[in-house]
Amino acid sequence: MSQSYQNQNQNPLDHLIRMLGGLPGLGSRSARRIALHLLTHKIERMMPLARAISDAAEAIHTCPDCGNLDTVAPCRICLDEKRDRSLLCVVASVSDLWAIERTHAYRGLYHVLGGVLSALDGVGVQNLDLDRLPDRTVSLGTQEVILALSATVDGQSTAHYITDLLAAHPATGGIRVTRLAHGVPVGGELDYLDDGTIMTAMNARGRLL
Amino acid sequence: MSQSYQNQNQNPLDHLIRMLGGLPGLGSRSARRIALHLLTHKIERMMPLARAISDAAEAIHTCPDCGNLDTVAPCRICLDEKRDRSLLCVVASVSDLWAIERTHAYRGLYHVLGGVLSALDGVGVQNLDLDRLPDRTVSLGTQEVILALSATVDGQSTAHYITDLLAAHPATGGIRVTRLAHGVPVGGELDYLDDGTIMTAMNARGRLL
Repeated sequence: MSQSYQNQNQNPLDHLIRMLGGLPGLGSRSARRIALHLLTHKIERMMPLARAISDAAEAIHTCPDCGNLDTVAPCRICLDEKRDRSLLCVVASVSDLWAIERTHAYRGLYHVLGGVLSALDGVGVQNLDLDRLPDRTVSLGTQEVILALSATVDGQSTAHYITDLLAAHPATGGIRVTRLAHGVPVGGELDYLDDGTIMTAMNARGRLL
Repeated sequence: MSQSYQNQNQNPLDHLIRMLGGLPGLGSRSARRIALHLLTHKIERMMPLARAISDAAEAIHTCPDCGNLDTVAPCRICLDEKRDRSLLCVVASVSDLWAIERTHAYRGLYHVLGGVLSALDGVGVQNLDLDRLPDRTVSLGTQEVILALSATVDGQSTAHYITDLLAAHPATGGIRVTRLAHGVPVGGELDYLDDGTIMTAMNARGRLL
């Protein structure tokens, strides 16, 4: 009875803890802590959270054009007339898109791949929003595709794949394909940087005088 | 428009991220990550999680006797006939109760305070389930009250308060009040232990031969 009351499959508490523990970054310990917090704040926290989740699930859609998440489809970035339609920034995920938006350094459009190619994780071309990218650049009249992908093996092989894809397409002639600059992160100490980054930063050094 | 779309108060996505970020152990960064994960797994994760939260909120109640959380009230621990009703273990929170239950080392009843006395956090006697504790020990016929409270200043001052409370009550004469043993944690290295713990463990040393 009481000994097994934490192991019953149909117990709504265990079910909740298991659901919370499946979220990224949460383990069973933090899931238990959150479940307990919610159950001791039912009115102020628990019911509003359940409502916030189902409201967001209903209200937020994936933009059919760029893959961003927004309450309107197409998303507000795609609809924004003031955005520079000659620039298309390719990102792996919506969180990368948000990260770039937070900098206010980019005023073009986006293309969310939904991941990067990865043999290890079993992510192939068919799992990503890649096929329609060349046609999209043509119909948008894109002049520059910026590949804002991680500087990892998977990110860089995805960047190579996209470069080849755009080069092979008959109607994308003259399109420029760029990638984010490599170098020392702002505020980063040289001592803690890997050799590859230092080497890249050395080769791409900028002139001061 | 697009620049401010992460700052709008009525945006269900921002609302969700704010709600998630208010959970214990989660910041805005992990809340964003979880919200994104949910939105990209709407059917498998997002709707089931909203349902799990509202189901648990409806099904799980605080036990009117001990303060435990369960689908039945009184809880299954209070209802369990095989439990030793002469023992009452006082804990600060339901998570402490669960931690003790996981050990299977205790087969008595519980009393959940809902926190510990803390001048700093503004937790007074009126905020805890303390007043009815002496009467509860009398009606249960408790012979030993085990104070399983943290070995912190707040936990220990709460333990002292409870000891005085039980001593002052007219009908609790002859009741035994104990606390958990202090000492070196199992698997713990002496080198990393604080002086207070080593001193306590030294004074309470056990004989081997």
